[in-house]
Amino acid sequence: MHAMAHTLWPINRSITGDGLRATLAHLQQIVPSLRISEIASGSQALDWTVPEEWRVISATLTAPDGTVVADVKQNNLHLMGYSCAVDRTMTLEELAPHLHSIEAQPDAIPYVTSYYQRQWGFCLTHAQRLGLKPGNYHAVIEAEHFQGSLSIGEVFLSGESDQEVFISTYCCHPSMANNELSGPVLAIYLAKWLSEQPNRRYSYRFVFVPEMIGSLAYLQQRLLAFKAKVIAGFNLSCVGDERAYSYLPSRAGDTLADRIVLHAMQHTDPHFKRYTWLDRGSDESNYCAPGVDLPVASVMRSKYGEFPEYHTSLDNLQDVVTPLGLAQSFALMQKIICGLEENLTYKSTVLGEPQLGRRGLYPQTSKKGSTASVRSLLDLISFADGKLDLLAISERCGVPIWQLVPLCKRLVQEGLFVRSENK
Amino acid sequence: MHAMAHTLWPINRSITGDGLRATLAHLQQIVPSLRISEIASGSQALDWTVPEEWRVISATLTAPDGTVVADVKQNNLHLMGYSCAVDRTMTLEELAPHLHSIEAQPDAIPYVTSYYQRQWGFCLTHAQRLGLKPGNYHAVIEAEHFQGSLSIGEVFLSGESDQEVFISTYCCHPSMANNELSGPVLAIYLAKWLSEQPNRRYSYRFVFVPEMIGSLAYLQQRLLAFKAKVIAGFNLSCVGDERAYSYLPSRAGDTLADRIVLHAMQHTDPHFKRYTWLDRGSDESNYCAPGVDLPVASVMRSKYGEFPEYHTSLDNLQDVVTPLGLAQSFALMQKIICGLEENLTYKSTVLGEPQLGRRGLYPQTSKKGSTASVRSLLDLISFADGKLDLLAISERCGVPIWQLVPLCKRLVQEGLFVRSENK
Amino acid sequence: MHAMAHTLWPINRSITGDGLRATLAHLQQIVPSLRISEIASGSQALDWTVPEEWRVISATLTAPDGTVVADVKQNNLHLMGYSCAVDRTMTLEELAPHLHSIEAQPDAIPYVTSYYQRQWGFCLTHAQRLGLKPGNYHAVIEAEHFQGSLSIGEVFLSGESDQEVFISTYCCHPSMANNELSGPVLAIYLAKWLSEQPNRRYSYRFVFVPEMIGSLAYLQQRLLAFKAKVIAGFNLSCVGDERAYSYLPSRAGDTLADRIVLHAMQHTDPHFKRYTWLDRGSDESNYCAPGVDLPVASVMRSKYGEFPEYHTSLDNLQDVVTPLGLAQSFALMQKIICGLEENLTYKSTVLGEPQLGRRGLYPQTSKKGSTASVRSLLDLISFADGKLDLLAISERCGVPIWQLVPLCKRLVQEGLFVRSENK
Repeated sequence: MHAMAHTLWPINRSITGDGLRATLAHLQQIVPSLRISEIASGSQALDWTVPEEWRVISATLTAPDGTVVADVKQNNLHLMGYSCAVDRTMTLEELAPHLHSIEAQPDAIPYVTSYYQRQWGFCLTHAQRLGLKPGNYHAVIEAEHFQGSLSIGEVFLSGESDQEVFISTYCCHPSMANNELSGPVLAIYLAKWLSEQPNRRYSYRFVFVPEMIGSLAYLQQRLLAFKAKVIAGFNLSCVGDERAYSYLPSRAGDTLADRIVLHAMQHTDPHFKRYTWLDRGSDESNYCAPGVDLPVASVMRSKYGEFPEYHTSLDNLQDVVTPLGLAQSFALMQKIICGLEENLTYKSTVLGEPQLGRRGLYPQTSKKGSTASVRSLLDLISFADGKLDLLAISERCGVPIWQLVPLCKRLVQEGLFVRSENK
Repeated sequence: MHAMAHTLWPINRSITGDGLRATLAHLQQIVPSLRISEIASGSQALDWTVPEEWRVISATLTAPDGTVVADVKQNNLHLMGYSCAVDRTMTLEELAPHLHSIEAQPDAIPYVTSYYQRQWGFCLTHAQRLGLKPGNYHAVIEAEHFQGSLSIGEVFLSGESDQEVFISTYCCHPSMANNELSGPVLAIYLAKWLSEQPNRRYSYRFVFVPEMIGSLAYLQQRLLAFKAKVIAGFNLSCVGDERAYSYLPSRAGDTLADRIVLHAMQHTDPHFKRYTWLDRGSDESNYCAPGVDLPVASVMRSKYGEFPEYHTSLDNLQDVVTPLGLAQSFALMQKIICGLEENLTYKSTVLGEPQLGRRGLYPQTSKKGSTASVRSLLDLISFADGKLDLLAISERCGVPIWQLVPLCKRLVQEGLFVRSENK
Repeated sequence: MHAMAHTLWPINRSITGDGLRATLAHLQQIVPSLRISEIASGSQALDWTVPEEWRVISATLTAPDGTVVADVKQNNLHLMGYSCAVDRTMTLEELAPHLHSIEAQPDAIPYVTSYYQRQWGFCLTHAQRLGLKPGNYHAVIEAEHFQGSLSIGEVFLSGESDQEVFISTYCCHPSMANNELSGPVLAIYLAKWLSEQPNRRYSYRFVFVPEMIGSLAYLQQRLLAFKAKVIAGFNLSCVGDERAYSYLPSRAGDTLADRIVLHAMQHTDPHFKRYTWLDRGSDESNYCAPGVDLPVASVMRSKYGEFPEYHTSLDNLQDVVTPLGLAQSFALMQKIICGLEENLTYKSTVLGEPQLGRRGLYPQTSKKGSTASVRSLLDLISFADGKLDLLAISERCGVPIWQLVPLCKRLVQEGLFVRSENK
């Protein structure tokens, strides 16, 4: 995943355009069934309209002495996203409104965009900005906005049921690692892993969209039509660093998606952070909006907007996103997905406590640890009333669902458990 | 309000009689539509009976040296409420059971009554009492109890709906300020203000009764017949001091009245006190009794029985009840009433997050404060599912309802909100 | 109760056999209506099978020098429960696997059994074990296992209703006091006391079983057939010491049994311990199993497994179980039973607060304490809506149900309360 992120890093992504397309094409190399759709500029995206496509040929800002101050070819962040074309010579004073830097983070190039108001601008470190001498600067942006399209990637993996698990992430950010190359690389490798699993209970749908406008367009064009099939959904963002996990609930707050994310995080990371719906700030705003009402919870490490490197050039693949961070998040998502797959409802076939001994389920000699495991087994059986799902039983037992799954399989083998229709 | 309280101060009020009538007549000068009803002595008042009317001509206690120790004309509290007539000369020792003072508050004349057992008595400061010399004292009370009536004042303001908001307060206490001139003066000025508001959504009913027996008689005679129309009610008492607000719930505890009082107090006074039903002690006992079940919450500053000046001559218009205290309580009640009027249920007309920018609702340039307001706007929209009322949304957003009301009006103008039938 | 425990102490009880039968016969002397049933070896007991009966004639372990190391006649715990017959001479080293002691409690003889795997063994103090000299030891156990039966005692006391209160305890432990002579002696004296009460509202069923296999057999043979009649049940265990009370909930956790036990303990012992369903370890596992679903809560002082003397010879009638401890537990169970009997639903017959004065329910002169009692009376009346049962009202009032019962009776006399059909 980290190597893939390195590959995608230099591409100049935006909410439309060839950078986005190239990114999706790279993801398609990992999962060939990924389908790329184009939605034409001007199409309705619920309350919004798909904007014109943006194409950049070059963008440089040259100092009075001929030094190149900022060049989009050196770092995509140097150019304000969606900048319009310009070719002007102007004094440093005239240039000031078009320059963006962060005084408090003098070594960071900020990430600035202006999608819905035509502007142009250059972004640079505050250290560099302070060194700029008075004189005439030359700003040249070769860029165009035109009737094109917005690209969306989708992987659908069918399962035994047509009920779906929905995973969404966004890939419109240029040259930043956690927000947001981590989401797409994690999602595509999850899709690859899932595509290799036989006997999936649920169908899975992975969606790679530009943030906000992409999820709106996708809802309009496709998702609203089958939203009733979605039993749980996850918005993946900022999942590549090694800091504490973060959970942001769906609007309803108690959907299956919320329950499984909370459960998995609680048993994985005692320091995970729990945000509220009021802290939202990404596509979940659309997925959980009134009338849409999808059961989508957000899974993050450091939450967007909350970590110091957020939306700057400091959000990189060396200091922030690491192979370990990505691997841990991948493992968490596996737990979440396996948890959903195995969240069955069982009914005990015997009345009263069963005799485990004659089934070889009770340790003949008491060894350290064996008691704990028999205890979990008895607790599990004591809750299997055919109504509580395994996730609810896990919560009552205080143990992770992935520890109860092998016990359930053994109890089914022994004839002590039968599956009950899910509530 | 404070001036009105000064006017009412010298009147010798009791649970029946001319003092009560004169008080209601003064209130009528503020709101001429106030209707005064008389309920005859002996009438049934649920489990009680309206008592005989009480009239006092004079009451003096004279010391052996001819000094007047206590005279009802000097301070109404000097005479025990509902005292029967007496004309006796007796030693200080014989007099003792008829004298009332408070050792712990030597400068306070206590407020003592004996409504349901015929007695007589004088109240004085403990300091004065300690100075009484032995000898023969002359107690003269010219008073009579007779078949008369109990007076009740009522203001009804009709609104678009015949659903009512009910506000009750009591005016049977003589010459005490917080308990209880503050309730009647606040209530009458609230009624005046409301009568001047056009387009009231709800009807309003203000009731001025003697405590306990008055609310019982009023329930019996009128209120039980239309109690189903009452959507929220408030018992106003001790609302004139500047100390922390106090909330005492209805018996049910979660009625609309409870919700709006809690909401308004939480966002007005972080130090407000929350009592329980077990702490009740006034007309709410009747309004919320089983089978009556009115949704009545009590609104107070210092709760009756809990502040040091309670039921003594120290509860005055100088040290306890102030113009500021009354004005603040008036403002709180306005928030409560406006909150009820504006507690509508809205439904967002768009799916997904709306594009605020093209409607001029999104700040073009980010200024301090503007982000917070956009945030509230988006939070508000995100909860407008046509089921939650605005009060519930305010609580979820953590902002007072009065901040969301103008946003709702704007969203209705923009066509982004439609009113939904209230639950 | 303590004397009865002394009488039962020397009997060598097990899950079957003459010791168990003799114990039940002794209990029958207290309550002659106790019925003893026998369930044949090999009978089905839900998922289990009633084991063969066990009979011991003698059991001695003799040292090389002829000293008797352990003799079941001296202390029943010296012989491992359900030991098979043996007559072997062996070295101390060969004997070791058959010897049981506790290093950490060198003066305690442990209680060890092997019901479902045929073994033999002797138990002794660790102090004695350390003193054993090498050489040839002679182990002689005269014992047999044979097709016999398992004995169960049952007392049924019919009441006005055929709804039942179910009380279960076990009597299969030899020569230990708290676990478990305390449960049977408490239960039998409760049954005796209840049999002497006229006008029982509910029927009562007391069951004396060997632990686990006994409750399973009893469920299979009898209880499942009428379990719907059981409105509340209690498992009594370890109720003879003077330490804090312990409550372990039913699986459902909020049954009438749970409510009354919690209520009684909260108002009896502020330091009572609250366990969870995960801490269970006795017959409640069967009574509350899925599909059985009896409303059975466990009542204990020190919980089994949690006190140092548990399952050793230190659990005796001198240091652990005391007459006071038993008497206190008896009193608690009386409160629980009376609480259930009196847990009626009342409806106030008057609207609004009633006039207590004319009924002599309001103190004419205020005495210390009288106000508190009037307060309880008014609180009680204020909640009597015909829906809340008295237990729920007690919880809202924060006073024990046994304080409200006499007030209710008085209010019924005065015509202020009528009984309402229980929910």
